[in-house]
Amino acid sequence: MQPFVFHNPTKIVFGVDTVTKVGKYAAAWGRKALLVYGQGSIKRSGVYAQVTAALRDSGIEWLEHSGVKSNPVLSHVRAGVKMAREQQVDVVVAVGGGSVLDEAKSIAAGALADNDVWDFFTGAARPKQALPLVTVLTLAATGSEMNCGGVVTNEQTKQKFDISAPCLYPKVSILDPQLTCSVPADYTAYSAVDAISHLLEGYFTSREQTPLQDRFVEGLVQTIMESTDQILRRPDDIEARATMMWAASWALNGLSTAGIGAYGFPNHMIEHSLSAMYDIAHGAGLAVVMPGWMSWAAQRDANKFAQFARRVFALNGADDSELAAAGIAALKRWFAASGAPVTLVQAGIAADDIPAIAANATMLAQKWGLRDYSAAVIEEILRRCC
Amino acid sequence: MQPFVFHNPTKIVFGVDTVTKVGKYAAAWGRKALLVYGQGSIKRSGVYAQVTAALRDSGIEWLEHSGVKSNPVLSHVRAGVKMAREQQVDVVVAVGGGSVLDEAKSIAAGALADNDVWDFFTGAARPKQALPLVTVLTLAATGSEMNCGGVVTNEQTKQKFDISAPCLYPKVSILDPQLTCSVPADYTAYSAVDAISHLLEGYFTSREQTPLQDRFVEGLVQTIMESTDQILRRPDDIEARATMMWAASWALNGLSTAGIGAYGFPNHMIEHSLSAMYDIAHGAGLAVVMPGWMSWAAQRDANKFAQFARRVFALNGADDSELAAAGIAALKRWFAASGAPVTLVQAGIAADDIPAIAANATMLAQKWGLRDYSAAVIEEILRRCC
Repeated sequence: MQPFVFHNPTKIVFGVDTVTKVGKYAAAWGRKALLVYGQGSIKRSGVYAQVTAALRDSGIEWLEHSGVKSNPVLSHVRAGVKMAREQQVDVVVAVGGGSVLDEAKSIAAGALADNDVWDFFTGAARPKQALPLVTVLTLAATGSEMNCGGVVTNEQTKQKFDISAPCLYPKVSILDPQLTCSVPADYTAYSAVDAISHLLEGYFTSREQTPLQDRFVEGLVQTIMESTDQILRRPDDIEARATMMWAASWALNGLSTAGIGAYGFPNHMIEHSLSAMYDIAHGAGLAVVMPGWMSWAAQRDANKFAQFARRVFALNGADDSELAAAGIAALKRWFAASGAPVTLVQAGIAADDIPAIAANATMLAQKWGLRDYSAAVIEEILRRCC
Repeated sequence: MQPFVFHNPTKIVFGVDTVTKVGKYAAAWGRKALLVYGQGSIKRSGVYAQVTAALRDSGIEWLEHSGVKSNPVLSHVRAGVKMAREQQVDVVVAVGGGSVLDEAKSIAAGALADNDVWDFFTGAARPKQALPLVTVLTLAATGSEMNCGGVVTNEQTKQKFDISAPCLYPKVSILDPQLTCSVPADYTAYSAVDAISHLLEGYFTSREQTPLQDRFVEGLVQTIMESTDQILRRPDDIEARATMMWAASWALNGLSTAGIGAYGFPNHMIEHSLSAMYDIAHGAGLAVVMPGWMSWAAQRDANKFAQFARRVFALNGADDSELAAAGIAALKRWFAASGAPVTLVQAGIAADDIPAIAANATMLAQKWGLRDYSAAVIEEILRRCC
């Protein structure tokens, strides 16, 4: 195990009807809020009415910054920063899925900064302070509710980059599983893929022996698959929705990676190019990339992939390479059965685009220091996604 | 799953040589520290020298409150409270195992209270504030380094009661696995039993379906057994020590119980009487109590015990009762093989004492609201520990 600091100060308020407590928790941080949300689905679902009633009951005045896209874009973040600064809000209240939360974090950091907010994404500056953030989660997937990171796309440069700093942990995240019951089957599947990918990136790219972290990951992946199967059979299964919601938070909150030393996000690196260049859901893109990347990586060291096959899919066999391949195939079958695309073509992306995608991905490979990933290597991985 | 609030704000600084950072972290909370430790083993091991050098280097003045017993006693806590108050210390620095940390938490709460500190244990008062606490852990077992509870024995009344409040989370806990390499084999085994018991109390007493929490518990128990086996074979196996240290923290930091609704600590209830009445290590007492309690509880509902047998010990069988019994026997064998006593006699306690132990345990049963546990029931469980 490698040295690490683990400090996750977010308070989680979990359970049916906890959405009604958002006013109470936001009021601990001020009287004037910036309410950040997406394209209006929270109005149709009634969540907007619940949240605003709770804010009103707690004496909180709010301004609205709506229209966050599924892959949040920089121009919209900048508009939110401008509003937060000009109106001098005390607290940011984000209501939505990972995209809304990521944009809200970016606004929270940008509002208190002298520099342009994109500097935090390029690494030209680092957020030292941010407005307090209270979140109400409506989609269990990205883990943004319990971590200090976020991802935004610069539409001009086609860069999908990330921001990360301890000041960006939400103060309070309200996880009301009832709010996720209206998530349709396709996004339920994509969300599961996303959460699983968060776990497997570290699991497969670390070079450390970390038996405890391995068990955490394996148990979380099993639980995410089981609860997703239940949700797809019965979308209003509140117990399964609750399990999935809590599991997704733990899939990217620092637990599974604390102590594993250096690790990378190669699948996210490639997927970020897909969703920066095409109109594809992040989880759907990951379902395309992961089986390809795993088959490429297992060629170099099959051992961990064999462990994955044994423990997560209860597969047996003496040959690590065969076992690894069987485990990867099992995961790919599960992705497909859940309704996610598992090839570029299924995602509506032509194989001819592979060089362009790889060229885009190398920008992030450089930023993230993933030195093994030249354009040629990324192309090879993408060909395995056909 | 039941509604819950999860909020664990302790910062963990983990890794070899992190002990040298204690001064830096303590200095964030003040200039005058109360240094709490045990019977002097930290002087023999050199940890005392490392800690005081670090405090000195960070410009921290300190007073010493040493002599904490393995089951900390109220009179000693009161002496620490008196010193902290009179000398107006800013921060408490605890160096030791769970007993030292528990006493330090009690002193931290008592120092800022108007009432006698024992009122926090009886429930007559509740800690609202406490001095900041920085810990350096030397024994991986109780989880006190990452939770807000502690246990102290009132020598006069023979009551081993607990304190718990959010203000008692350590601000920073330094987990340097090197410091645990000198823990002898017997205490290594007792520590593993203790950590396993923390996980299994909630696992077996909750009535909720909580698949994610189940997987967390099962993975942690497997990891604790595997790393303890490695440590007993090779006491200076720093990787295994590190794994055990991190696992023990997660065994009682709120993760495994968040969402499981009502649950109890019946094994701890009975064991607290053993270690209040006899000179027995807490983990040794638990190794005696647990197999007896489990066989009693499995009679009422074997299902979860069968799951435990299947998942933790890879046992198979169609009959839940048989499988449950086999799983309990496997755990008992593992306790014994690790060097823990598994019967009252092995722990030097006469079966004739059972009524007296049961009478003592009913005090805690009442305090903890464990209504199923009459003296007669506790006697029945204790007879299964013979």
